[in-house]
Amino acid sequence: MTRQELIALIRQRQSFLCVGLDTDLSKIPQHLQGQPDAAFLFNKAIIDATIDYAVAYKPNLAFYESMGINGLIQLKKTMDYLHSLGKPAFTIADAKRGDIGNTSKQYAKAFLDPEGEFNFDAMTIAPYMGEDSVTPFTAYEGKWVILLALTSNKGAYDFQYIESSGKRLFETVLEKSKQWGDENNTMYVVGATKADMLTDIRRIVPNSFLLVPGVGAQGGSLEEVCRYGLNNDCGLLVNSSRGIIYASNGEDFAVRAGEEAKKLQQQMAKAIACQ
Amino acid sequence: MTRQELIALIRQRQSFLCVGLDTDLSKIPQHLQGQPDAAFLFNKAIIDATIDYAVAYKPNLAFYESMGINGLIQLKKTMDYLHSLGKPAFTIADAKRGDIGNTSKQYAKAFLDPEGEFNFDAMTIAPYMGEDSVTPFTAYEGKWVILLALTSNKGAYDFQYIESSGKRLFETVLEKSKQWGDENNTMYVVGATKADMLTDIRRIVPNSFLLVPGVGAQGGSLEEVCRYGLNNDCGLLVNSSRGIIYASNGEDFAVRAGEEAKKLQQQMAKAIACQ
Repeated sequence: MTRQELIALIRQRQSFLCVGLDTDLSKIPQHLQGQPDAAFLFNKAIIDATIDYAVAYKPNLAFYESMGINGLIQLKKTMDYLHSLGKPAFTIADAKRGDIGNTSKQYAKAFLDPEGEFNFDAMTIAPYMGEDSVTPFTAYEGKWVILLALTSNKGAYDFQYIESSGKRLFETVLEKSKQWGDENNTMYVVGATKADMLTDIRRIVPNSFLLVPGVGAQGGSLEEVCRYGLNNDCGLLVNSSRGIIYASNGEDFAVRAGEEAKKLQQQMAKAIACQ
Repeated sequence: MTRQELIALIRQRQSFLCVGLDTDLSKIPQHLQGQPDAAFLFNKAIIDATIDYAVAYKPNLAFYESMGINGLIQLKKTMDYLHSLGKPAFTIADAKRGDIGNTSKQYAKAFLDPEGEFNFDAMTIAPYMGEDSVTPFTAYEGKWVILLALTSNKGAYDFQYIESSGKRLFETVLEKSKQWGDENNTMYVVGATKADMLTDIRRIVPNSFLLVPGVGAQGGSLEEVCRYGLNNDCGLLVNSSRGIIYASNGEDFAVRAGEEAKKLQQQMAKAIACQ
């Protein structure tokens, strides 16, 4: 999906919500547990209930990999379903990969290749290994790399704020990576719990899309993220995982997920209107 | 595998060689291509030919993921085979993962859990997201986290050498991570192409094992790595991937792989003897 298509989708749905499909078999409703395609059935119901309020879906690879090979089959079924819907959605492999150039090429092929089994639009990448670990992900037309800048967890304070020559590491990541790609193929992860940093971040990447996790369960505020993060093209994808997909663990889980997604969409529509 | 068991294995085989199973279907011999379990058959032949000269095997996850779900099946068959051999080997999932705590737990479960499909001994992790992204991998008894410190690629110069308060980022990674684990559950990746840095690294982590990729195809020198990296317990796992597994792409590929592994083992035996 190109930048223009993503922006058009955001305008059409009046939403910049990304639903995080962190599907955990121990947390899904009882009546689905034990079914052979439980994870896919859960995801399908969540997608059906939220697709009118969301523009993006972000399966977290760890949750599928922890189910073993069957987990990857569930992920493939989920992606096939998303691609079969008449309604478009931006798809993100939350994979946090990154390796030397010839290895990153293989990861890009695994998740972004249109001929591959998953055909995601984008993939999250850790920047520690530098340029050649990142650029293979922008080699596919219309596909995106989403680089970790400032993450939502406590461990973000260990290295990401380290200051050198007046710049913090996450700022150096933003600046360097602008030489590797541009706002048409590169986004950044900025945790909602670090909303106070968004002004500094927007100074470096005013036009880039930011993928913002951490709203809800992790304590980030949507209002603050919008105040400091929105740009003229929206420029945000705000992710909610647990707050939506585990809104209920009863038979009404999909209905409740839809309600939570709708609430966020309505706040987002207002925020866009005020821009 | 515990530290003591690993050290005993190194002494017994007179080797600290790790064979990188970067199995690429476009590079394996013609006569294997097209066979349903081509990647596994290739790996099995490489393992059989090298097990007497190597102490560790490191499948690079990217190469299996790029084959789609079948790639993971090939990886599982490879791991089952390694576990079924009477001869022990230290197994490393070269996965470069790392995410917020509750997600890293899922990755640890996926690859390290003794009840899981793969049951690796160790896993490579990128440090960018800090403590809570790393500690879940040391939660399994006898299992290891192998943290990226200084990598072998060109992109290593983008961030890993950034200096703050007199310390380069890779040094800060080494120092901080010493508070999260110890030499019984934490190793570090240090590229062979950065052998001149090993003295500085050994000052910070004198007793830790270092996983050293980049000998061979990437240009690193085994002799230099030994000179600056060996400690009293050996303390090194030196990886060779392409130099061994693609020594020949004819029907003699396994024989040639064995020969290359033996050459390295003989150099390693000498290096250990001189310690």
